[in-house]
Amino acid sequence: MLKDVVRTRSYQNVITQNNFLFKDKIVLDVGAGTGILSLFCAKAGAKHVYAIECSQMADMAKEIVKTNGFSEVITVIKGKVEEIELPVPKVDVIISEWMGYFLLFENMLDTVLFARDKWLADDGVVLPDKASLHLTAIEDAEYKEDKIEFWNNVYGFDMSCIKKQAMMEPLVDTVDQNQIVTNCQLLKTMDISKMSSGDASFTVPFKLVAERNDFIHALVAYFNVSFTKCHKLMGFSTGPRSKSTHWKQTVLYLEDVVTICEGETLSGSMTVANNKKNPRDIDITLKYAINGNRCKVSRTQHYKMR
Amino acid sequence: MLKDVVRTRSYQNVITQNNFLFKDKIVLDVGAGTGILSLFCAKAGAKHVYAIECSQMADMAKEIVKTNGFSEVITVIKGKVEEIELPVPKVDVIISEWMGYFLLFENMLDTVLFARDKWLADDGVVLPDKASLHLTAIEDAEYKEDKIEFWNNVYGFDMSCIKKQAMMEPLVDTVDQNQIVTNCQLLKTMDISKMSSGDASFTVPFKLVAERNDFIHALVAYFNVSFTKCHKLMGFSTGPRSKSTHWKQTVLYLEDVVTICEGETLSGSMTVANNKKNPRDIDITLKYAINGNRCKVSRTQHYKMR
Repeated sequence: MLKDVVRTRSYQNVITQNNFLFKDKIVLDVGAGTGILSLFCAKAGAKHVYAIECSQMADMAKEIVKTNGFSEVITVIKGKVEEIELPVPKVDVIISEWMGYFLLFENMLDTVLFARDKWLADDGVVLPDKASLHLTAIEDAEYKEDKIEFWNNVYGFDMSCIKKQAMMEPLVDTVDQNQIVTNCQLLKTMDISKMSSGDASFTVPFKLVAERNDFIHALVAYFNVSFTKCHKLMGFSTGPRSKSTHWKQTVLYLEDVVTICEGETLSGSMTVANNKKNPRDIDITLKYAINGNRCKVSRTQHYKMR
Repeated sequence: MLKDVVRTRSYQNVITQNNFLFKDKIVLDVGAGTGILSLFCAKAGAKHVYAIECSQMADMAKEIVKTNGFSEVITVIKGKVEEIELPVPKVDVIISEWMGYFLLFENMLDTVLFARDKWLADDGVVLPDKASLHLTAIEDAEYKEDKIEFWNNVYGFDMSCIKKQAMMEPLVDTVDQNQIVTNCQLLKTMDISKMSSGDASFTVPFKLVAERNDFIHALVAYFNVSFTKCHKLMGFSTGPRSKSTHWKQTVLYLEDVVTICEGETLSGSMTVANNKKNPRDIDITLKYAINGNRCKVSRTQHYKMR
């Protein structure tokens, strides 16, 4: 994970270029892993950093903290945020890299919100404090053929029943920006400093306008993250026009091949919710419609990330 | 998995080019997945095929069998081989694609042996019936730097304690054949038709002779699989000189960089055993020594696949 340069450098820049946020402050690092963010914060002058990590990696983090001479400043706590005790009543800063694929898949957002509600001082800061989900549409004839139509003829056998299942699984993959057919639309912004856990379930409308005559095989979702409390706005994007990250993008294949003309609109809505049976799974419902010159379609599709 | 062409085509060729092994025979497909091997067998004239699959995929396999008109010939049984009942006392053929990374990691070999002992007729055949593990040595300066030395300086911090852990984890990756420095040696052959479960734990010696002056950064293990009951010998290799498969190769990094001259020998032994605590994990112990012109080393290293 450390090898995702976009991610780690972004956090590093946020911390090292904004010492005023950390100098003499109490910091809580939620899901600290190797402790890299805690180390950045300690180096930026934090008074004390509590690094919480529930996996075996906590033992490594302790050793790394010691090796690098920060034992006085960083306390690694092995355990679950929901279960551990902090030796201080309040913290000034909560920092975390909690985002999952599609922003919300297997994420640690609830844990960050729990820590915020329990320990963050009234004038405290959550880093990052904004996350947004975006949508665009792509042509993907070749890949859809490989991934989906493949099942029509597998070594001479018809396995098309697997096709339905393959269609329902959002694909985490890197999309070439040349595949983008429409504008990119902001679907949803989340304010981590204020939101509640339930705000991560939502229905939002979209309108995607074609920038050229093309076919649409899939919609593509991605997220941006911002640190608005920095001296100047900082953050990063996981979109197909940005340098790629381990989050890649999330591709939702459409049952229809949509023939769209420049200027025409594919509109609809996306509903995102945790699966009721398995709350770690995410259910996505996509409604889309086009009433175009060469194509009229209206359809609802269900996807499940698991 | 079906997209691993080397694997699936090998099984397809074995079955379609050796109808005599299947014609009017009772076949058991262990870990059938989508049922592809069962379909090949049915098409090759099997009297009946029992396809055992314990995952949800069994439901798909049932539908695929029906769609392709083989419901009369193939019976998909959803369940564990160790727990299900077969409607026949004996089978003539057991076919399975049971191999894991490093041949033995998270494999289904024990299940195949269980099925063999319980159901295979005296003159029955197991396909494949031979599997062999091989070893060679590679230079890998660049990659070792990226994967292992990376931890010496992570965004300015010393995380070398993670290096030790990284070294202990065999890396499943594709090796370029130009990296090969020595001969390739057969370590161990397993006869699936006769072996017992315990034969998958062993200690074997090796002697690797350098084919050029070079450095050795890692040993590389891979496996071959054979179907010796075919009209002519068939099989495939997962070695670095063959077309790559999803199994890739297994790279064991050495603590030393071995400076080896053409004709010199790196000798030692490899011990493979299931971990006692977690039997799904594999412990590998490597002893290696060289008494060369430019390098004298003798060392024991422990690895864990998990």
